[in-house]
Amino acid sequence: MVRPMTLFGVVPPLVTPLTPSYEVDTASLARLVQYQLAGGVDGLFLLGTSGEGTFLTDEQRQVVLETVVGEVAGQVPVLAGVIDTSTARVGAHISQALKAGVAGLVATAPFYAATHPAEIERHFTRLSELAEGTPLYAYDIPARVGTKLPTALVISLAQAGVIAGVKDSSGEEPSLRRLVMERRDAGLKEFAIMTGSEVAVDSALAFGVDGVVPGLGNVDPAGYVRLFGATSAEAWDEQERLIRLFDIVEVADRSRMGASSAALGAFKAALYLLGVIDCPVTAYPGIPFDEAELAALRPLLDQAGLHSPA
Amino acid sequence: MVRPMTLFGVVPPLVTPLTPSYEVDTASLARLVQYQLAGGVDGLFLLGTSGEGTFLTDEQRQVVLETVVGEVAGQVPVLAGVIDTSTARVGAHISQALKAGVAGLVATAPFYAATHPAEIERHFTRLSELAEGTPLYAYDIPARVGTKLPTALVISLAQAGVIAGVKDSSGEEPSLRRLVMERRDAGLKEFAIMTGSEVAVDSALAFGVDGVVPGLGNVDPAGYVRLFGATSAEAWDEQERLIRLFDIVEVADRSRMGASSAALGAFKAALYLLGVIDCPVTAYPGIPFDEAELAALRPLLDQAGLHSPA
Amino acid sequence: MVRPMTLFGVVPPLVTPLTPSYEVDTASLARLVQYQLAGGVDGLFLLGTSGEGTFLTDEQRQVVLETVVGEVAGQVPVLAGVIDTSTARVGAHISQALKAGVAGLVATAPFYAATHPAEIERHFTRLSELAEGTPLYAYDIPARVGTKLPTALVISLAQAGVIAGVKDSSGEEPSLRRLVMERRDAGLKEFAIMTGSEVAVDSALAFGVDGVVPGLGNVDPAGYVRLFGATSAEAWDEQERLIRLFDIVEVADRSRMGASSAALGAFKAALYLLGVIDCPVTAYPGIPFDEAELAALRPLLDQAGLHSPA
Amino acid sequence: MVRPMTLFGVVPPLVTPLTPSYEVDTASLARLVQYQLAGGVDGLFLLGTSGEGTFLTDEQRQVVLETVVGEVAGQVPVLAGVIDTSTARVGAHISQALKAGVAGLVATAPFYAATHPAEIERHFTRLSELAEGTPLYAYDIPARVGTKLPTALVISLAQAGVIAGVKDSSGEEPSLRRLVMERRDAGLKEFAIMTGSEVAVDSALAFGVDGVVPGLGNVDPAGYVRLFGATSAEAWDEQERLIRLFDIVEVADRSRMGASSAALGAFKAALYLLGVIDCPVTAYPGIPFDEAELAALRPLLDQAGLHSPA
Repeated sequence: MVRPMTLFGVVPPLVTPLTPSYEVDTASLARLVQYQLAGGVDGLFLLGTSGEGTFLTDEQRQVVLETVVGEVAGQVPVLAGVIDTSTARVGAHISQALKAGVAGLVATAPFYAATHPAEIERHFTRLSELAEGTPLYAYDIPARVGTKLPTALVISLAQAGVIAGVKDSSGEEPSLRRLVMERRDAGLKEFAIMTGSEVAVDSALAFGVDGVVPGLGNVDPAGYVRLFGATSAEAWDEQERLIRLFDIVEVADRSRMGASSAALGAFKAALYLLGVIDCPVTAYPGIPFDEAELAALRPLLDQAGLHSPA
Repeated sequence: MVRPMTLFGVVPPLVTPLTPSYEVDTASLARLVQYQLAGGVDGLFLLGTSGEGTFLTDEQRQVVLETVVGEVAGQVPVLAGVIDTSTARVGAHISQALKAGVAGLVATAPFYAATHPAEIERHFTRLSELAEGTPLYAYDIPARVGTKLPTALVISLAQAGVIAGVKDSSGEEPSLRRLVMERRDAGLKEFAIMTGSEVAVDSALAFGVDGVVPGLGNVDPAGYVRLFGATSAEAWDEQERLIRLFDIVEVADRSRMGASSAALGAFKAALYLLGVIDCPVTAYPGIPFDEAELAALRPLLDQAGLHSPA
Repeated sequence: MVRPMTLFGVVPPLVTPLTPSYEVDTASLARLVQYQLAGGVDGLFLLGTSGEGTFLTDEQRQVVLETVVGEVAGQVPVLAGVIDTSTARVGAHISQALKAGVAGLVATAPFYAATHPAEIERHFTRLSELAEGTPLYAYDIPARVGTKLPTALVISLAQAGVIAGVKDSSGEEPSLRRLVMERRDAGLKEFAIMTGSEVAVDSALAFGVDGVVPGLGNVDPAGYVRLFGATSAEAWDEQERLIRLFDIVEVADRSRMGASSAALGAFKAALYLLGVIDCPVTAYPGIPFDEAELAALRPLLDQAGLHSPA
Repeated sequence: MVRPMTLFGVVPPLVTPLTPSYEVDTASLARLVQYQLAGGVDGLFLLGTSGEGTFLTDEQRQVVLETVVGEVAGQVPVLAGVIDTSTARVGAHISQALKAGVAGLVATAPFYAATHPAEIERHFTRLSELAEGTPLYAYDIPARVGTKLPTALVISLAQAGVIAGVKDSSGEEPSLRRLVMERRDAGLKEFAIMTGSEVAVDSALAFGVDGVVPGLGNVDPAGYVRLFGATSAEAWDEQERLIRLFDIVEVADRSRMGASSAALGAFKAALYLLGVIDCPVTAYPGIPFDEAELAALRPLLDQAGLHSPA
């Protein structure tokens, strides 16, 4: 048993490889897990935004959970996204994830409806009870959820023992740094603060976050592992290389597909070109990359020094 | 069997009465149905935004569907919201709703992920296949979904026979009017256009919408029925009375609850004060109205001439 | 002397015709004034958003004021926009406009800086003192200013005699209607409420606004005059014709010019094609319409039945 | 003559001290200049957002320019904000500033109207001609202007010799870093990139910006000078101290004043408490700090180790 764990280091939010008929491709998923482990990651996060968790049926989520937990076999902690519109619906995902044996749970605030911080507090408090001791992490992603988790609320939930950490995908670096400062002021030594940024990891590590949950880590886990372990000057170079690699999310023609398809599609397309997964489609109704977009993406992988694993 | 139907007239989006322990209160729900039928409504829309559909578990949704379909007993069409993050997840709700015998299905674009119109088109096209002949309506509510359905897409889906109508809760009257004009230009006589506005119904009816799906209709169905059937001058007076009644959504203290709780909570609080439902709580984690808020709401009901049904 | 006036009816916000070298084209401006007067307008509003007032130097503003006041020669009231970033800067424009003999002044809230309603109140109060008895109108255009004037503030300024009316270009019809209702409740019979919408005039007149300040009125003043004087059914037809005419603002290629250039450029291009003004350029640095865009615009004028004045 | 200059280091955007009757307080302004020079700043930026340039009349702007240029007496470069709605209006400010002998000019994109990058390019190109060889800097402040300067446009304007640098107040660190990378790729060694952030200076310096234009530098110039010259670890501590000092902008009651008054008012209130300026009012119609807010601010100065200069 890994729990209680402390979340830290490089914990990529795994994409969910699909077949051309939109079923979970378990063989590709297993290869992706091995690619990550070979890259040296410190944990894996399933069924998050990159994992298209909100696109999958409960049955498909079950397949993902079982495949990854089995393939990882305890080598690193596995965290599961339990992202849904309401407390009750998240609760059902928690039950499923606990049965699968995950080491941590990651939930956003409620969405679709417009909520107040006091309601978000009730939400996480109830989820923590349902988690039955498995660490619960708050996932702050206002671009998707419509609500930024207030720093005061995060600290308060941490002090109450409701949440064990936070994944910050707000892109608001000053707010993230302030959270790190407030954690120190509050003496919350066990509370994990992770950044979801792909492109500001070196500075976030410099001001004190514990790790990174980068979507781009699907494509280049070893790069983020090097970045995490690097000295300040090395980190700067590695971060710049990864910033340029992140241009893959700009490859797709945005006049024909949405932002989610362009970004997740790029991660999947790269993994497809690298031979890790068999099919680059995103979840339905996402528009898939076409041949021209795949061709345009390849030079960015080459430039970043990425090649198919042996 | 009511299908194929044409959606028109006053079709309130039913709230879902809950017990203090957050279970569906079927007795209150049955009374609410009778209150609506007595008010003369032309249809009922379940499990929409007002119905807190995204807050309920699948089991709770089942209870709502069965209770209302049974209580209505074919007197008016019953439409079900099938609102969820992705095509696959909406598909599961469609299966459930079809088994319950609803006369129409109402779906939004995907949300949480950021989608493109071409992806939204794929979404509705697939949902239409899953609907197996039961009319599918598009629900345009950008404040919740993050995407406005483009007029050209709506017309195109209508021409393709994918959707049978649209519920417009965008609050963008010029866009709604343009849709009515484009419908006429395209000769789409059977395509239903409903407004979700509570406060601009008289003008929307004047420029050609077919009906209204007003959350406030939970509280005053008869008022909206009068408005729908009125001459232009009478409609103006009735609309102004309903605009003032709509102030109930401003009663709650917004420094302690969210916008959804304040609005849906007001509808429920009013129905509670009118004796239609037994408990005014909104779905968890919503903050409920307190005594002071209930007291502040009552005069607005009195001023609107609303009294408990006999 | 026209003052004290009551603002009402059709009061187009005049565009400012420019020469190819970006000076005020006084001959074209005089013809535009005559075109408007021939159309039967009830007043003219200079140096507003459509008038590109914020683009012009003080010297150019002076030319516009003198030309129009002279050309109108008291036949209808002339109102001047005094739109600038701060109270002090607006004050300078007020002095200039008063010397030119305008019948009313139109000011927005401060912009660039982020202001509070209490600060906006101080702003209008000071401007009213500077106006020395000439009526001051509040211009509510949140898309440009970044702030929506709260209804309570507008009513309060009206009751204090600070402002004589409001031009609402917010596009928020429910808020506008509520303002009309609150005006009635407050017994403010002399307070003018004008809509800046081109496309929802019939419904705004139906719920009680006093008139319209339509940018599109530059192109078709007679159409708006007919709409203002029409019965309800006639108004509906006229409004629909004008809605279709308003498609001229969609003609320009938005990948090569901004929204302001596309809209004001369309008004100017139409007036150019109708022979009213000599050159369709918008103020520098606006990108002008090209030949293809001019050609694409002409059929929309024909379809609307607009022809060059004799 | 300082020009041609390279902008770098710590260049605070000076506030404009006012008297209780809202005139420029030249004695306080002179003391503020001396306070800055004593703090070791590398330049001064007048009439920017912090300088309330958009609030001042042309006469007041003249007083500010003459006072500061005279007081500085060539010890450091003086840059002037020439921020206004249009090219023509900015041009007038440029003439004035050039006569006053400034070493650089700082302009935003046009605002109030909605512009396109191609129009912004025309704007800066014309301004550059009007600058007659004095360096022109682009000021990127989307929260005020409504437009983010695209990186490609900034690089293109730099390559064309139109602008000599950029002040980035977008708060978008990844975009700023990308600009630094693109500058290097383009070999633009003389092009200055300054951050307008108060709270992310250490990381911005680490990834290669040339300096900082911090509003908070009004209050603590020596702190930013230390931060600029520090080793990486020292910088981190200094930045954290300044982050905490920046809490002064949260002191004012935001239910009674706007964001600009709260932030600029805090800088002025701090300078007032430190004895540098005689009166803390912001420009009209800004609501000034009250006694309670002044009292609440003082402990934050003490905590930061700030005391009145001897």
